[in-house]
Amino acid sequence: MLSKSQISFIKSLHQKKYRKENGLFLVEGIKSIREFISSDYQIDTIYYDKEQYQHLPKLPANINLFEVNNVELSKISTLQTPQGFLALIKTPETKNIINKDLKNKFTLVLDGVQDPGNMGTIIRTADWFGFENIICSMDTVEAYNPKTVQATMGSLARIKIFYEDLPAFLTDIDIPVFGALLDGNSIYKTKWGQEGLVVLGNEGKGITAEVIKKINHPVTIPRIGAAESLNVAVSAAIFCTEIVRVKN
Amino acid sequence: MLSKSQISFIKSLHQKKYRKENGLFLVEGIKSIREFISSDYQIDTIYYDKEQYQHLPKLPANINLFEVNNVELSKISTLQTPQGFLALIKTPETKNIINKDLKNKFTLVLDGVQDPGNMGTIIRTADWFGFENIICSMDTVEAYNPKTVQATMGSLARIKIFYEDLPAFLTDIDIPVFGALLDGNSIYKTKWGQEGLVVLGNEGKGITAEVIKKINHPVTIPRIGAAESLNVAVSAAIFCTEIVRVKN
Repeated sequence: MLSKSQISFIKSLHQKKYRKENGLFLVEGIKSIREFISSDYQIDTIYYDKEQYQHLPKLPANINLFEVNNVELSKISTLQTPQGFLALIKTPETKNIINKDLKNKFTLVLDGVQDPGNMGTIIRTADWFGFENIICSMDTVEAYNPKTVQATMGSLARIKIFYEDLPAFLTDIDIPVFGALLDGNSIYKTKWGQEGLVVLGNEGKGITAEVIKKINHPVTIPRIGAAESLNVAVSAAIFCTEIVRVKN
Repeated sequence: MLSKSQISFIKSLHQKKYRKENGLFLVEGIKSIREFISSDYQIDTIYYDKEQYQHLPKLPANINLFEVNNVELSKISTLQTPQGFLALIKTPETKNIINKDLKNKFTLVLDGVQDPGNMGTIIRTADWFGFENIICSMDTVEAYNPKTVQATMGSLARIKIFYEDLPAFLTDIDIPVFGALLDGNSIYKTKWGQEGLVVLGNEGKGITAEVIKKINHPVTIPRIGAAESLNVAVSAAIFCTEIVRVKN
C-alpha cells in the first residue's frame, strides 16, 4: 500500500524540475527495466503490480521492492495503460564527453531536438546501429523525460547522453563535423572516413547559425518527392544506416 | 461565433466513428491546409482565428469560411496549442489500388501499424522519397486520424492511401514482395530491380504469419548494436533511402 506522500513524490518525478532535484527518473515496463538492471545505472526502487509478480526477475539485494495494486500503479504511472512495473532509477552524474571518446567512431549531435518521442527514437536507432554516445545541445529535450525513456525501449540503458555547449564544444575538437543541411552534398556520395560527428537540428528551426559555422561537411538527403522536410528521427536513422553501410 | 451544436459536431470528428459517418476529417495549421487546397481533396470549411486572418490564402469560392476566436478554436482543436486554422476536409471515396499503379515503382505496404504518429511519419517520409501510394492492411491505423494527419505535415495531400485485405491482395499481384524481417538478406546487398512492394509490420508483433507467406524477398537491416528492434517509421525510412540510393 502506497502512502499519499509516496504517490505524490513519485508523481512529482513526472516533472523535470523534481527529477533534477531528486536525481531520479522513471522507467516503466519490465523489458525496459531489465535493460537498466543489467547496466551501470543504479536502480532505487521497483514498484510492481502484485498480479505481475511472476515476471519479476531476480534482483540485486540493494533494490527496494514495493508491491502495489493496479489502482496505485495507474496513479504513479505516466502511461495511459500502465505496464505492471515502474522503477525509480538514479540519474547518472553529469559528465562531459572527452576527445578520446570521439575517435574512430561516429557520434550523433543533436542541436535543440525538442520532441521527447523523437529523442527516444534517435537513442533507440543509435543503439541498433552500434553508436555509443549522443551529444546534445543544452536546450535539447531531457533524456530522462518519461516519454523519451519510453521511446528508447531500453536503449537509454546503453547509449551515453552528454549535454554540451555545442558551439564551444565543436570549436575544441579535431574530427570532421558532418551536418544535415538542405544545401549540402548528397549523403549517398559522402566520404565518411573513420570518424566524425553528425549534427541534426531542431524539428522546426533546424541547426542554429552558430553551430552551422562549425560544420565542415554539409550533407543532404536527396529529395525526390515534395515533402518539405523529414522528421528528425528519420533523418538521424538515414545518417546511421548510410554510415554503417559504407563502413561495413 | 460558433453555436454549441457546431462545436459539438466538429468535436465529434475527433473520433473515428463520426469521421466515417460524416465523411470528413480535420486538418490543422495553415501550412498543411494549403497542401490540401492545392490537391484533389475537397475542402468543406475552414475555421480561422480572426487574429490570423492575414495568413489566409486566396480560396476557391466553394469553401465555407468561418471566423472564430481563440477560445472557440481551442474547443474544436485536437491540439494542445491550436495553430490558428482548422479545416474540415472530405474523406475521398474508398478505392482499391490497381495492378497498373504498382508497376515500375516501389510501394510501402503496412501490415497493422497502430501508432498514428508512426503512420504519419511514414507518409511524410514516403512523400520525401517520391513514393506515390501506401497500401495498408484493414487493421492499420486510419490515415485520417488527427495525429496521423498532423505527423504527415501536409504529405497526406499527396500520398494516396489504400486499405486492402493484404493476404488476398498479395496473392493477386505479380511483382516482387520484399518484407522487413529479422532473418532476411542484408538490405545493403538487396537487388531491388525495377518494382516491388515493401512490407512493414506492426510495432509489437511485426508482420502477420499470413502476410509473411507472401513475401518472396525477406530483407533485414543489419544490427550492429544491442537494440531489440527499430521503430517502424525508422525502418520504413531506411527502406526508402536504400531503394532511392540504389535506383539513382
